[in-house]
Amino acid sequence: MTLMPNVVRTRPNLCTAIEAELRTMIESRAQKAQAYGPEFGRLWAIAGENVLGGKFVRPLLLVETYDALAPGAKDREAAISIAAAIELLHYAFLLHDDVIDGDLVRRGRPNLIGALLAEAGQLPLTGERPDAGRPDSALHWAQTGGILMGDMLLAATHQAFARVDLAHPLRLRLLDLLEHTINETVAGEQLDVGLGDGIVAPELETILKMCGYKTATYTFELPLRAAAALAGVEPSLESALTNAGRHLGLAFQLQDDLLSTFGDPRHHGKDPFSDLREGKQTAIIAYARKTSAWAAIEPSFGRPDLAGAEAEEVRRQLSECGAETFVQGHIDQQTRAFHELVSTEHIPAQVRSVLVDLSGHLEGRQS
Amino acid sequence: MTLMPNVVRTRPNLCTAIEAELRTMIESRAQKAQAYGPEFGRLWAIAGENVLGGKFVRPLLLVETYDALAPGAKDREAAISIAAAIELLHYAFLLHDDVIDGDLVRRGRPNLIGALLAEAGQLPLTGERPDAGRPDSALHWAQTGGILMGDMLLAATHQAFARVDLAHPLRLRLLDLLEHTINETVAGEQLDVGLGDGIVAPELETILKMCGYKTATYTFELPLRAAAALAGVEPSLESALTNAGRHLGLAFQLQDDLLSTFGDPRHHGKDPFSDLREGKQTAIIAYARKTSAWAAIEPSFGRPDLAGAEAEEVRRQLSECGAETFVQGHIDQQTRAFHELVSTEHIPAQVRSVLVDLSGHLEGRQS
Repeated sequence: MTLMPNVVRTRPNLCTAIEAELRTMIESRAQKAQAYGPEFGRLWAIAGENVLGGKFVRPLLLVETYDALAPGAKDREAAISIAAAIELLHYAFLLHDDVIDGDLVRRGRPNLIGALLAEAGQLPLTGERPDAGRPDSALHWAQTGGILMGDMLLAATHQAFARVDLAHPLRLRLLDLLEHTINETVAGEQLDVGLGDGIVAPELETILKMCGYKTATYTFELPLRAAAALAGVEPSLESALTNAGRHLGLAFQLQDDLLSTFGDPRHHGKDPFSDLREGKQTAIIAYARKTSAWAAIEPSFGRPDLAGAEAEEVRRQLSECGAETFVQGHIDQQTRAFHELVSTEHIPAQVRSVLVDLSGHLEGRQS
Repeated sequence: MTLMPNVVRTRPNLCTAIEAELRTMIESRAQKAQAYGPEFGRLWAIAGENVLGGKFVRPLLLVETYDALAPGAKDREAAISIAAAIELLHYAFLLHDDVIDGDLVRRGRPNLIGALLAEAGQLPLTGERPDAGRPDSALHWAQTGGILMGDMLLAATHQAFARVDLAHPLRLRLLDLLEHTINETVAGEQLDVGLGDGIVAPELETILKMCGYKTATYTFELPLRAAAALAGVEPSLESALTNAGRHLGLAFQLQDDLLSTFGDPRHHGKDPFSDLREGKQTAIIAYARKTSAWAAIEPSFGRPDLAGAEAEEVRRQLSECGAETFVQGHIDQQTRAFHELVSTEHIPAQVRSVLVDLSGHLEGRQS
């Protein structure tokens, strides 16, 4: 995903503060890790580079919203800590997701697993899933690194929430939010895998639920609700922010699916047919399955060797059968609901501006 | 591992209290999980059964030590919460270890992954590693369940530490211990995998370090140090307990390796040749590699089809070359160091009795 809210340009100091907090969290751990040998130190070094090279979308959303809700309030440092911890959580989820999906590349560059694999002196990186043979020992080593580093980042996230300098009841509120978020994200990941593995029936309703759980909750709902909790706002405002986050999140995830299949790979940096090759059950596919075009698409869907002209043809069929338009319609619906909510509910003007700015960026993105 | 301290017989109320705490932690989460569909609920149901069917070795060690250090003290309920959380941590580590090792069985019964696989209606369980082909979708689904449930248990462990009803500075001490423990356990797991995958050189010193990190820290050091912190004892006593735990832990892990290779499978319930087939780099192998017997052992070591008379012969050679005696000598040395420490350092008699009881059990175990 790429999200680059205007805040990166307009509030460079905030980016710097978040980056400094993340750097402290990572470097203190990377240093301790050295004591356990070079391989363990390497995990933190690679993960640290990846995290610090990120765009801090979730932390920026949290602190921007906090500043809009409670300008100059006393818990801003705590807000920055929680914001940085949410970025670690994001990276923990990405790592375990990459292990589960067998991915070695993210946004055109080796992920931690791909980097460990390359360092183990094996296999040139191709951006494709590991080959069909039994995972060799270098890949096993690299994927183990992905599982273990994900565990350490999940632990680091919880440590930050548990230690944040706040009154204990507020800390407990944030820990509740973290628990709810992890449950929902993990449930979404499990549904996604169950859909792909043919364990869960690929109904449109299930797929939409999965989209909300897997990404929207931790990307939008968690930062917004954490900001609301830290700013001490009324429950009704927190609830409106939660709903706004859900609409945005669902629109975002559906757009991600559209871009993966129909977008320009020069922008999104992914293999343009990987969703189709993996047999990923998206809303696009759920719609197509109910049309007469499905008979022609089905034989190619989920074929590990799908490529070239055949893949282009599947994409054309998916567009022609109305699946692209259908999903775009769903995105528009979520976006409208979001705009209605932020303009009619009692959302303060400053907060509305943060959210509308983010939404505007989402609508225009190409990656 | 099996450890059944006498406390299970002599203090049934303590077992019941720990079980009740674990049941509350699990059932509250299992109930929330229902909302996300039957598959997600199933993870908690299976994990809950497995955790509650355990022997609570680590929680018992913690609370027994706490009671011995500070009889009748005010933080006993907190001690029970932390003890239960450590059992969840143990289970989280086991799950990710089983995913990494491709294991479907633990102690002769399907583990969570094996149970999910069986429920997906695939492959009869054989107790062997998944076959050499690309993991099929049922296995992928089951192993994903292992990763995700491990994540949720790791999260639940941190939630319990973060929420425990204690003064904040003491809570922070316990969070420090948890962080140290997770780092060391993960470093040990990574070393173990690196040894098996041929990434890390199989030196005896590295193998002994790995044994301490991977199991001893969270099984012995964490419960003992948490008890010391909760009881508010002097740093010198905590440090003596830490060392005692390390000696016991190393003896325990080395004995585990001896039992896996030379023990009676009717007692330990494992496949008796799985360590040899997997090419596991134990202290036994590190010793054997330096003897003239290695030339005869090497061709069979790590062969996925090693079985029957050939496997028996490898075992005989490992014993005859002195590896069994060497490792037993190391265990005896650690055990002696432990006994010297608990009798000469200023360890209170009550605590000594808890530790000596546990050590006596370790020495006599057959599984």
